[in-house]
Amino acid sequence: MAGGAGLAYGAMSTMGLAPALADPAAVRFRSPSSGDLIGDAAGDRSILILGGGPAGLCAAYELGKAGYRVTLLEARQRPGGRVWSVRNGTTETDLNGETQSCTFSEGHYFNLGATRIPQTHITMDYCRELGVELQAFGNQNATTLVNYTGDQPLANTSITYRAAKADTYGYLSELLKKAADRGALDDVLSREDKDALAEFLTDFGDLSSDGRYLGSTRRGYHSEPGAGLDFGGGTTAPYRMSDVIRGGIGRNFTFEFGYDQAMLMFTPVGGMDRIYYAFENAIGAGRIRYGSEVRSLRNTPEGVAVEYVQDGVRKQETADYCICTIPPNLIGRLANNLPGEVLTALRAARPTSSGKLGIEYSRRWWEEDDRIYGGASNTNRDISQIMFPYDHFGSDRGVVVGYYSTGARQRAFESLTHRQRLEKALKEGAEIHGPKYRENVSSSFSGSWARTKYSESAWVSWAGASGHGGEATPEYTKLLDPVGRIYFAGDHLSNAIAWQHGAFTSARKVVTQIHERVAQAA
Amino acid sequence: MAGGAGLAYGAMSTMGLAPALADPAAVRFRSPSSGDLIGDAAGDRSILILGGGPAGLCAAYELGKAGYRVTLLEARQRPGGRVWSVRNGTTETDLNGETQSCTFSEGHYFNLGATRIPQTHITMDYCRELGVELQAFGNQNATTLVNYTGDQPLANTSITYRAAKADTYGYLSELLKKAADRGALDDVLSREDKDALAEFLTDFGDLSSDGRYLGSTRRGYHSEPGAGLDFGGGTTAPYRMSDVIRGGIGRNFTFEFGYDQAMLMFTPVGGMDRIYYAFENAIGAGRIRYGSEVRSLRNTPEGVAVEYVQDGVRKQETADYCICTIPPNLIGRLANNLPGEVLTALRAARPTSSGKLGIEYSRRWWEEDDRIYGGASNTNRDISQIMFPYDHFGSDRGVVVGYYSTGARQRAFESLTHRQRLEKALKEGAEIHGPKYRENVSSSFSGSWARTKYSESAWVSWAGASGHGGEATPEYTKLLDPVGRIYFAGDHLSNAIAWQHGAFTSARKVVTQIHERVAQAA
Repeated sequence: MAGGAGLAYGAMSTMGLAPALADPAAVRFRSPSSGDLIGDAAGDRSILILGGGPAGLCAAYELGKAGYRVTLLEARQRPGGRVWSVRNGTTETDLNGETQSCTFSEGHYFNLGATRIPQTHITMDYCRELGVELQAFGNQNATTLVNYTGDQPLANTSITYRAAKADTYGYLSELLKKAADRGALDDVLSREDKDALAEFLTDFGDLSSDGRYLGSTRRGYHSEPGAGLDFGGGTTAPYRMSDVIRGGIGRNFTFEFGYDQAMLMFTPVGGMDRIYYAFENAIGAGRIRYGSEVRSLRNTPEGVAVEYVQDGVRKQETADYCICTIPPNLIGRLANNLPGEVLTALRAARPTSSGKLGIEYSRRWWEEDDRIYGGASNTNRDISQIMFPYDHFGSDRGVVVGYYSTGARQRAFESLTHRQRLEKALKEGAEIHGPKYRENVSSSFSGSWARTKYSESAWVSWAGASGHGGEATPEYTKLLDPVGRIYFAGDHLSNAIAWQHGAFTSARKVVTQIHERVAQAA
Repeated sequence: MAGGAGLAYGAMSTMGLAPALADPAAVRFRSPSSGDLIGDAAGDRSILILGGGPAGLCAAYELGKAGYRVTLLEARQRPGGRVWSVRNGTTETDLNGETQSCTFSEGHYFNLGATRIPQTHITMDYCRELGVELQAFGNQNATTLVNYTGDQPLANTSITYRAAKADTYGYLSELLKKAADRGALDDVLSREDKDALAEFLTDFGDLSSDGRYLGSTRRGYHSEPGAGLDFGGGTTAPYRMSDVIRGGIGRNFTFEFGYDQAMLMFTPVGGMDRIYYAFENAIGAGRIRYGSEVRSLRNTPEGVAVEYVQDGVRKQETADYCICTIPPNLIGRLANNLPGEVLTALRAARPTSSGKLGIEYSRRWWEEDDRIYGGASNTNRDISQIMFPYDHFGSDRGVVVGYYSTGARQRAFESLTHRQRLEKALKEGAEIHGPKYRENVSSSFSGSWARTKYSESAWVSWAGASGHGGEATPEYTKLLDPVGRIYFAGDHLSNAIAWQHGAFTSARKVVTQIHERVAQAA
């Protein structure tokens, strides 16, 4: 057994997991070499994995590489969990009881779940390892629009990001240069600082020689400049300083500064679910049992036992260990022998609302009329944003995401019928992009995660935590430890909640924990 | 003849050119319908086009659609002119007398000329019309580096754009909020303005509750945060305010605010030259004579006459009209009967230096080690920038553009041998990206437009003009008019010098001028 464990250790080492035994902080991803798959190095330990989303599939994949016997139960008939790419043929009955069938044209889709990947995330490495082709995802675009309702100046006005940024940065630069010139910051700025700051601000704000913002080519032209003496009618006029400041037209600029949202961002060609079909292929379809609804989860004296229903038949499966990636908000519904404090901890993972609606248009008006190729328009309406497709550029049709909203703004949609959701999305979208927003609509599909079977939440927020993980609340910390031979994994147990990276790193952490335990027991 | 002209007018109308007769400012591009190609509607007028770059090919294409008899002479053996995608098999002897042959791996290339397209440019429409597949081009990237030499603080320090922006925007916001709080701007900001400004700045700069910039998650973490209690070692520490300001680490931020550089930007899949092979295909290869060096250009009583040499044979061609897209710096060398003031005007178009070097690496260290997927690092060294590939993400090799420099920084390269250029590029690149920059180099190719036959310039700058066109200098204006039956076209006669859009709009303007003349003469 020691030899077997040693051999397994060697295999894990090449996949970057083994250093965890010495230094958990050093567990870093490395692409595997072909020598990774060394068979049953870890002996004949069996692992039962519940859930075929990113965490479950990643765990099955990594354990399989190290020689473990893996069985994965997934309630849906597809891999990916909340990573869900909707295309022609997608059919879903939601918890409102409504069934939608997607009729998008061939090759068109939208990601109802995860849609983008930051460069830093381990998701990029899995795409490399699994051969999933990537393309850039437009997380910002100078030609998309902002339009905010309210009583403030510039309310209900559609303004390009290009113009909003030029005006905001222009006035901000003018104001700071003026203040510095007046000596208002002489206690914190040296003469050299002030000179360098003035030079920077003149460029940053495109200021005139006397330090004023008077508009900028950055805003754009009345028409596109062309040949000869066609100067595009000159640049468009800036908004007034007070209107720009009080209008809040820059309220969304910092989205793109975020560590996990800054360009460049990426997405798989053909849909985010390509990653999970690649996992499925690498794991081996024989190890995955789709349509398997888990009903019970118990530690037993020998290991773990799970009951599930597949094709109307109640079945049981036992294994040495279990990795449960079922959403924390659903685990408590299973028959189980989990301790009370674990069930309490699971209840601290609070469901959130989020959802999207995809609209297929038979004309790419956003490209042809508005020169928008990808990116998103933003608003404080319930639709929150309109996301333009990043594929099929220049073709004759495309799928626009008519809303991607969370929290209260999503709850405004989730109890509506699909038809009502579409009507509300078209109404609000037309307020931003004009009457053409209602034209050439050929089909649509919507989903709200709080009303989606097997999820009932888009992601969770931990009671007492302020953000997407990163805080060791008692309940979060509690669930990092196994309960007997049952381990919990998922993005909810990571510092990247709602990101595939969180699910993957959580799965890898649990795989490492199990492997350590197996090695030490050997 | 009137009927013929009327028919031609109808054909032109469907391609969006005809309104020029009534209102030149209304000449806008529209994608053509299949009804455009109505044969010899314009009669049997013949047009001789000199040069198979963007202007020449666009003119040939549009005139061909309207039924004109078109012949295009191109000195090179390929279409595209200064739009030049270098890949395996590309061979070129430069004006220094050095011959390079490219040995990049199959499917890899770099654009030695034009490499990106703004959404607003007519180039996007031609890609749609010609069926050229587009992908996003990374004109900014949070994970690429800035590193500037000099005596200033933070000199010779490699800093991610992510960190440089976080610190710059943070301190800028702190300073402006402080000045406003102190009342230094009370003459220009109302109480409401100040409240709104403070709210914006707190978000924009990620300021603490007491208005200070103390670092930000936007800068990044010591390591990537993962699962459980792996918080990534916390965020990296900000640089000092004075160092950030005087270090000038934000000197390149405004590049991406530019009207024609703001994201999202695009590029054809497989190389910019895909556009010109698509034009070639649409025009019909029989109308294009490659390897044809023009030697003379003359107005004659009947039309135009051109002498050229093809395969060592001196030939002559006559036509009703000529569109000359030969670079203005080279036209004066032709035997010609152009008026002296035209030759003087052509000399006001001053050649500029620019060039690139492509380095194929057998390992994508920028992705695997540095999480850089596309975009560019910037420096004030002669290399100016290092551009990372936007294709083949996650594969085992790729072509990095080791420099793309202009003016004096390019002149530092253009008289060097290729081997010397590569060595200089690797030395400067390693100062930014470290010793790995010198490793895994498998091949390379460089070009300097001032030393490239048939170009001898990257683009021109007009004597007396401050930017890329947009100013009606006397010489520029002079060349907008035909000389007899000879018309000049090219990006140099547009408000988008150095852009394909400029060449296309110039070609379309001249096509329209000729068609007006033909219609009026009919």
